[in-house]
Amino acid sequence: MPFNKAAQNPNFEAVVRDSFARQPFMEHVGARMTAIEPGICEISLDHDKALTQQHGFFHGGLVGSLIDSAAGYAAFSLYPEKSTVLTVDMKVNFLKPAKGKLLSARAEVVRGDGKIYHLKGDAFCMEGETKTHCATGVFTMMCFLGMDDAPNLGRES
Amino acid sequence: MPFNKAAQNPNFEAVVRDSFARQPFMEHVGARMTAIEPGICEISLDHDKALTQQHGFFHGGLVGSLIDSAAGYAAFSLYPEKSTVLTVDMKVNFLKPAKGKLLSARAEVVRGDGKIYHLKGDAFCMEGETKTHCATGVFTMMCFLGMDDAPNLGRES
Amino acid sequence: MPFNKAAQNPNFEAVVRDSFARQPFMEHVGARMTAIEPGICEISLDHDKALTQQHGFFHGGLVGSLIDSAAGYAAFSLYPEKSTVLTVDMKVNFLKPAKGKLLSARAEVVRGDGKIYHLKGDAFCMEGETKTHCATGVFTMMCFLGMDDAPNLGRES
Amino acid sequence: MPFNKAAQNPNFEAVVRDSFARQPFMEHVGARMTAIEPGICEISLDHDKALTQQHGFFHGGLVGSLIDSAAGYAAFSLYPEKSTVLTVDMKVNFLKPAKGKLLSARAEVVRGDGKIYHLKGDAFCMEGETKTHCATGVFTMMCFLGMDDAPNLGRES
Repeated sequence: MPFNKAAQNPNFEAVVRDSFARQPFMEHVGARMTAIEPGICEISLDHDKALTQQHGFFHGGLVGSLIDSAAGYAAFSLYPEKSTVLTVDMKVNFLKPAKGKLLSARAEVVRGDGKIYHLKGDAFCMEGETKTHCATGVFTMMCFLGMDDAPNLGRES
Repeated sequence: MPFNKAAQNPNFEAVVRDSFARQPFMEHVGARMTAIEPGICEISLDHDKALTQQHGFFHGGLVGSLIDSAAGYAAFSLYPEKSTVLTVDMKVNFLKPAKGKLLSARAEVVRGDGKIYHLKGDAFCMEGETKTHCATGVFTMMCFLGMDDAPNLGRES
Repeated sequence: MPFNKAAQNPNFEAVVRDSFARQPFMEHVGARMTAIEPGICEISLDHDKALTQQHGFFHGGLVGSLIDSAAGYAAFSLYPEKSTVLTVDMKVNFLKPAKGKLLSARAEVVRGDGKIYHLKGDAFCMEGETKTHCATGVFTMMCFLGMDDAPNLGRES
Repeated sequence: MPFNKAAQNPNFEAVVRDSFARQPFMEHVGARMTAIEPGICEISLDHDKALTQQHGFFHGGLVGSLIDSAAGYAAFSLYPEKSTVLTVDMKVNFLKPAKGKLLSARAEVVRGDGKIYHLKGDAFCMEGETKTHCATGVFTMMCFLGMDDAPNLGRES
């Protein structure tokens, strides 16, 4: 009964990692893709003062942003070739302050068809042996067919 | 019938701007508070390649993050002294790609009582004369009484 | 800059009202469509003990349900012929107890294109001269093309 | 690391079932509480034409309503005595048409403290051997202390 997560594109990992590498904002916050399999993605980043809010915790917007990115790439991993992904909506509940050395967001496709993919995602903070579940959410992603994820760099010049 | 947005703290603007200035993540993305009045807040930032996703638009997570921050400070502007704000949940629908020179997020308290504040928020992109409504959302904020928004820096040393 | 709500189907009102009339659940709760124009819909119902929760107010789930229906038909009013509507997701914040003689839900399209429509919706309670804003939300609707909203009753027999 | 769901009120089951029995709307739709344990609740109902939308499936608003009720009672099961529960917000994604003989909603507390409880909830349809996961969502509930869940019937007369 759980949704059968099968990749349509055998090169899904290369496609997803290439797209992630073309997101300057993910680089700007020091995020790296720490896991990718069909329908599942994990993105993590280390604590840095530049990423915090007024109490020294990871900024909530950043936490939501990281789960959203993990959700987008979890969905994208199941898409066919020649397609791209767009977030339709994101919903995040904040459970605990995001306090720790490492922030990790993990998302998973709950169900998806040609156009619409539904995902759940969570964020965790790690500090030594302590793992804190700091946020949980639900996301909707769209699959755009016939549109390349990579911009045509030649044309842009 | 609309919610009467009256500030309980006469120094609300100084309190809000001070808190915002203590959020390193907002500085990291180049955000500035462009409007603050009781129950309303606007935060804006200029386009920078470091803030984009793979198609060159503002990253969706950043857009959500900016509205969330505006919502948090719109709520905080109505709080009494000796309190702080925490996002309970954020929900953002993405309407259009966030394409433009300037990204501006504006949020407004819909209703609030002692503990729970409900807000709506929107993000707009400006490019020359063109203003694009790129995201809309609903947010829930909590008011923590008896807890200072500013960390006790002396103790942290 | 606000989204231009133009009906593609000149018979939108008849189509929407016909679909609403084929929803037994709306009849079961005594709901009636009190306004319909391109991109906007209002659905209302009178207080009845059968519709309440333990404190005698309208049940929160019913309030959410009514806004969701108004949102669905607000979107549907903008769809082309030979299409049907499905809720992708609903998000409702509850602002005040839904106390009153009349419950009224009103939704409006914020933006929509071929497939995905984004809406905002609100619920109000009326008791004498008092109008209470009891809930607010954001909704995503899908437009299914080439699928009739009315079931082919002949084929089903 | 998962949230430890321990009931504070040893009579939680009686309290929850009593509250549910005082919700006329749940009776109006034929809902029954099919499981209750600390932090978990399941509510189910049988197919009835009165509960459907235009395609003969369970009405989406009803599906959302049922998960919301399950979420409310899952949270309430963890509350101390002399308290009541209120939904702060509900977010439901619709995965598949709710087609079946039986509709069952199940919710679980993800985390909760004195005031705010975060829950996840799902709805399933059963038809013979087929179980369809038709909706998933995230909910926020508030715990009101010092307020009885049961109205004082004597005073109301």
